[in-house]
Amino acid sequence: MIISMRLHATREEIDQVCDRIREFGYKVHSIEGEERVVIGAVGVGDVTACLESLEALPGVEKAVRISAPYKFVSREFHPARTQIRVNGHEIGGDRFMVMAGPCSVESETQIMETAKAVAEAGADMLRGGAFKPRTSPYDFQGLEVEGLRLLRKAKEATGLSIITEVMSDGDVDLVSEYADVLQIGARNMQNFSLLKALGRSTRPILLKRGMSSTIKELLMSAEYIVAHGNPNVILCERGIRTFETETRNTCDITAVAVLHELTHLPVVVDPSHATGKRSLVPALARAAVAIGADGLLVEVHPCPEKAISDGAQSLRLPQFRQMMQDLGPYFKLWKEARLAETPAAV
Amino acid sequence: MIISMRLHATREEIDQVCDRIREFGYKVHSIEGEERVVIGAVGVGDVTACLESLEALPGVEKAVRISAPYKFVSREFHPARTQIRVNGHEIGGDRFMVMAGPCSVESETQIMETAKAVAEAGADMLRGGAFKPRTSPYDFQGLEVEGLRLLRKAKEATGLSIITEVMSDGDVDLVSEYADVLQIGARNMQNFSLLKALGRSTRPILLKRGMSSTIKELLMSAEYIVAHGNPNVILCERGIRTFETETRNTCDITAVAVLHELTHLPVVVDPSHATGKRSLVPALARAAVAIGADGLLVEVHPCPEKAISDGAQSLRLPQFRQMMQDLGPYFKLWKEARLAETPAAV
Amino acid sequence: MIISMRLHATREEIDQVCDRIREFGYKVHSIEGEERVVIGAVGVGDVTACLESLEALPGVEKAVRISAPYKFVSREFHPARTQIRVNGHEIGGDRFMVMAGPCSVESETQIMETAKAVAEAGADMLRGGAFKPRTSPYDFQGLEVEGLRLLRKAKEATGLSIITEVMSDGDVDLVSEYADVLQIGARNMQNFSLLKALGRSTRPILLKRGMSSTIKELLMSAEYIVAHGNPNVILCERGIRTFETETRNTCDITAVAVLHELTHLPVVVDPSHATGKRSLVPALARAAVAIGADGLLVEVHPCPEKAISDGAQSLRLPQFRQMMQDLGPYFKLWKEARLAETPAAV
Amino acid sequence: MIISMRLHATREEIDQVCDRIREFGYKVHSIEGEERVVIGAVGVGDVTACLESLEALPGVEKAVRISAPYKFVSREFHPARTQIRVNGHEIGGDRFMVMAGPCSVESETQIMETAKAVAEAGADMLRGGAFKPRTSPYDFQGLEVEGLRLLRKAKEATGLSIITEVMSDGDVDLVSEYADVLQIGARNMQNFSLLKALGRSTRPILLKRGMSSTIKELLMSAEYIVAHGNPNVILCERGIRTFETETRNTCDITAVAVLHELTHLPVVVDPSHATGKRSLVPALARAAVAIGADGLLVEVHPCPEKAISDGAQSLRLPQFRQMMQDLGPYFKLWKEARLAETPAAV
Repeated sequence: MIISMRLHATREEIDQVCDRIREFGYKVHSIEGEERVVIGAVGVGDVTACLESLEALPGVEKAVRISAPYKFVSREFHPARTQIRVNGHEIGGDRFMVMAGPCSVESETQIMETAKAVAEAGADMLRGGAFKPRTSPYDFQGLEVEGLRLLRKAKEATGLSIITEVMSDGDVDLVSEYADVLQIGARNMQNFSLLKALGRSTRPILLKRGMSSTIKELLMSAEYIVAHGNPNVILCERGIRTFETETRNTCDITAVAVLHELTHLPVVVDPSHATGKRSLVPALARAAVAIGADGLLVEVHPCPEKAISDGAQSLRLPQFRQMMQDLGPYFKLWKEARLAETPAAV
Repeated sequence: MIISMRLHATREEIDQVCDRIREFGYKVHSIEGEERVVIGAVGVGDVTACLESLEALPGVEKAVRISAPYKFVSREFHPARTQIRVNGHEIGGDRFMVMAGPCSVESETQIMETAKAVAEAGADMLRGGAFKPRTSPYDFQGLEVEGLRLLRKAKEATGLSIITEVMSDGDVDLVSEYADVLQIGARNMQNFSLLKALGRSTRPILLKRGMSSTIKELLMSAEYIVAHGNPNVILCERGIRTFETETRNTCDITAVAVLHELTHLPVVVDPSHATGKRSLVPALARAAVAIGADGLLVEVHPCPEKAISDGAQSLRLPQFRQMMQDLGPYFKLWKEARLAETPAAV
Repeated sequence: MIISMRLHATREEIDQVCDRIREFGYKVHSIEGEERVVIGAVGVGDVTACLESLEALPGVEKAVRISAPYKFVSREFHPARTQIRVNGHEIGGDRFMVMAGPCSVESETQIMETAKAVAEAGADMLRGGAFKPRTSPYDFQGLEVEGLRLLRKAKEATGLSIITEVMSDGDVDLVSEYADVLQIGARNMQNFSLLKALGRSTRPILLKRGMSSTIKELLMSAEYIVAHGNPNVILCERGIRTFETETRNTCDITAVAVLHELTHLPVVVDPSHATGKRSLVPALARAAVAIGADGLLVEVHPCPEKAISDGAQSLRLPQFRQMMQDLGPYFKLWKEARLAETPAAV
Repeated sequence: MIISMRLHATREEIDQVCDRIREFGYKVHSIEGEERVVIGAVGVGDVTACLESLEALPGVEKAVRISAPYKFVSREFHPARTQIRVNGHEIGGDRFMVMAGPCSVESETQIMETAKAVAEAGADMLRGGAFKPRTSPYDFQGLEVEGLRLLRKAKEATGLSIITEVMSDGDVDLVSEYADVLQIGARNMQNFSLLKALGRSTRPILLKRGMSSTIKELLMSAEYIVAHGNPNVILCERGIRTFETETRNTCDITAVAVLHELTHLPVVVDPSHATGKRSLVPALARAAVAIGADGLLVEVHPCPEKAISDGAQSLRLPQFRQMMQDLGPYFKLWKEARLAETPAAV
């Protein structure tokens, strides 16, 4: 920790800070500048508590931690990429993972038709919501268990793995019965009760970045899951909230590269929620592959204009097929880059 | 709903939109402009589903709803201010409500000392966290049930009502046994499972605005609670996330006035989380009273530098007393304004 | 400066950083932590150049300055409030300054009628744009010199001081002939050519915060003007850009209190641009007075629905009169607070 | 325009709105909904003035324009991509344009060394600041005319075109003598005096998006330049300001695709300012090529740790060479896509 004292901090205030640092078990290194004093605290201890305590002392301008607040998910402590096995395929390795499907599971016809089409086009997983977080209490809230059953049917028919959302700690066990990967929505990224419950699950988790969450907060939420026992976390950039209104969210595409520097966990991009507009999805998907994301999560619907939710951002089946085809050469470049890096990363 | 067609939309696309509108049970009013066609849809129906469906149609530029997406919480449908009774006092009426106390309940001494001091200084309610949402899994997570028991003791000793946070739908019943008002944190504003559970509670709810939530989303979350059966919702502005880093959050003080135009529910301000700095709290509290908020939620601690959480933003006991005293003339002006308005508002 | 090295920084990288620090004339204080090395640089030198150089070195995680980047405008170096005399009245002292008038000067009738009404209601200065920054090239760009002449007429008739905007360094001299205070719009806060020209002017400057500028950047822009020779700068909070769309901007009301801690310069609030809605202006004005701003800049128009610009946020003349009357008791509390503080602040 | 009336708007208020619309020369189409009245205004007239006037009328909830506020830069009116010729190469066509060089021109050695290296690596233009916008008045402000002379020398030696910044309308002629393309910095995107002066220039303009400017505002600023006589505008996405602090700005990469839908002007990406970190530049550059940008603007320095400005985000010369090499296959895919589209776009 580094503590900057205010300009006219008294000797007494400085001493009080040094004493407090020592009480927490740290060693004190004081730097007396021309204008103000800066104090370093070195050692091992309860950093957060110590920081909060110091910030409340008189004469303190600012107290900041130097070490990252996360351990398990940090690339500094685990340099090789984490590869997460889902039904025989590994995400985070040298296979780019495509997850596609409708926003909501609406009916057997809809989900079966979509599943077959995305499987043929080359997707690895089927997405589809059974429990839906909706801004309005008057909107469709999902088919719930019936939706899970339909997803299982689609899996049996196509061999696709299933990814679907859990919204409450009480539903983790139920959804785990049906899903291969549990998806956590942006609005639940800091639902700590849910994160703890996911730590006790054996399913891989796809954790979406909150729409106003920093990269650091996303990593802290992943750390919650890992620290509670589940090391298999996939991160997802799905756009953040900014002042811009032309798109539904603003895709922080650079976050993919930043996350790959900071963490060993795989990172996927959701170009559907990031843009909110079908016409923009293929372009952003290309950018995601090029920047080195580990996968894509894409909304696809056999008839978007009849979709109960997110129709405007869902690709039609032929559009998805076309996009997969156009992405072909980018997948190839992606794989070459991955194969080239492997030895260095381990 | 108003649907703007793209510049070169074909007659066929326009017809398809009109047909879809009629399928949803609305009447069509088409306006043919110089450059493009705009279509109005009038009637009663499933607005969200219709909008989503229209946005997915070819040739559609944008589809927007005109009516507010909330009903129960809207001031248009219920012009008089809602007054919520908590242990004999009413919030939302002509009494300004002050809720004060530590971020976390830490020990019996701490909570009892604080409770007595804030009661003497004129507070109406004691706040204190027993279940704590923390960004890091390694930080103190609250005393849980033991914390609730200590709050009850403090209530017995001082007569203060108790407000404390619930983080999970599974805890609503437990916390309701001890608390007079249930607080929902910013990170849970769109935890829809929790909101539904709160709708079944008989306790008033204090709902904090999410740090990147719009005013409209805050109202939609309140609507969730009311639509599920609980009409007693207090809204809380606690600062939003912006690019500014001098303060912990940016207090959207104008939101108080906006909310009072849009809804009949009471609105309180939390100047502690909004600023993150003790020295700024009294100034922002004055602004909150002056703009017409219904109450304040303030962090107070007998020894902030020993606080486990939020020490930097907690007022010391004498500082709180001083602030309450300085607010005196502002409370007086506030009350005069409320008494003057009553007939008009009803 | 404090430089944090990366986790696995080599001894060689650390030494290179220390050497570079010494080359810039600073002394090195190195803190060897459990996980990483942190280096302090103490002394006087070209901080920015040194920081930029260090950040570019291998092994460096982050380099931050500890001292504030501004000097002249800092309250640490000049604790007493700066009082700026405008035609016999002083802003920043114990008189709350109200500046009111239309967005644009449109005609002699319009500006004379407004000037008389705001003078009668108690305003000290008349605002009105002669040169208008407009987002669209097709919108009214102001009456220019003719507008300045009309402002002078209004001054002669009412005795009000004049504040009006300058948009280009080439116009500073011209506008200074007519105006008592030069206003710099939010979009020009970092127009450095203009700031330098203002440093050579003898008129007080009202500098509006850019819509996405931090408080620190606002102070840096004020520092530009002061460092180039003009110490009379009034700061203006007029709302920042956030994701919220219910209001035109989000008023960062707390910035007033933050600025009063950091600088000795006066700070005023513009509730018209901050809200964009007439109905919200009086409420926000109350908050501004209560939090301790030094003045208000308010848009007023005799017939807002015929205004060429900003009609929706302009108060009608009777509304302004009413607002001034309602603010009366708040002005009184404001003045008592100012008189009480004076000895302490000097 | 579409005008929504408030819920309980009176017949009189509605009539007043209709009258006003007609006064401005539009035809009225009124839609009477279940809850409220919505009025459409059709025709040709002064939209902005009419909207502002309507918004100020009693009973009006909101007035929005339907047609885009820009004409010349809109793709609806000019579907083919604009190709801008700079010394024999065309940007916006089927050649991806790379502009590279240091943040500031510092010395002859520095700029000549950089120019040769970037030319060899395949860049088309040399960037370098002679006039520098700096947040602090105490930072290096550029070599000014001497810097321009050095750029000319570098052009003579390498054949590279020159792009450099203009900060004031007074400098447009001077800089035009030396530069092939005039760069407008983010902070000057809404410096309307400057935009008008650029309209009178014969040089192509590279207009950077303001750090809190919407895509629409960027297009409006381009419209200023075009409407004042200069059709050759290149747009530049360089990151916007958000709450995220891991990167200097947040690159809104999707804006490239959005802009290509809305306008025929070329769009380039500046991955250096967007990230602020050298290590992230190549990854973001790949994403920019993949999403279909027309070019890149990259900071390169022979010795970043000795750079006067922006050292942390400048690539070293071998890094730039490596990046260009790695981008090779992406350039190839980019070109194939452009060649495939040409007939459709014209």
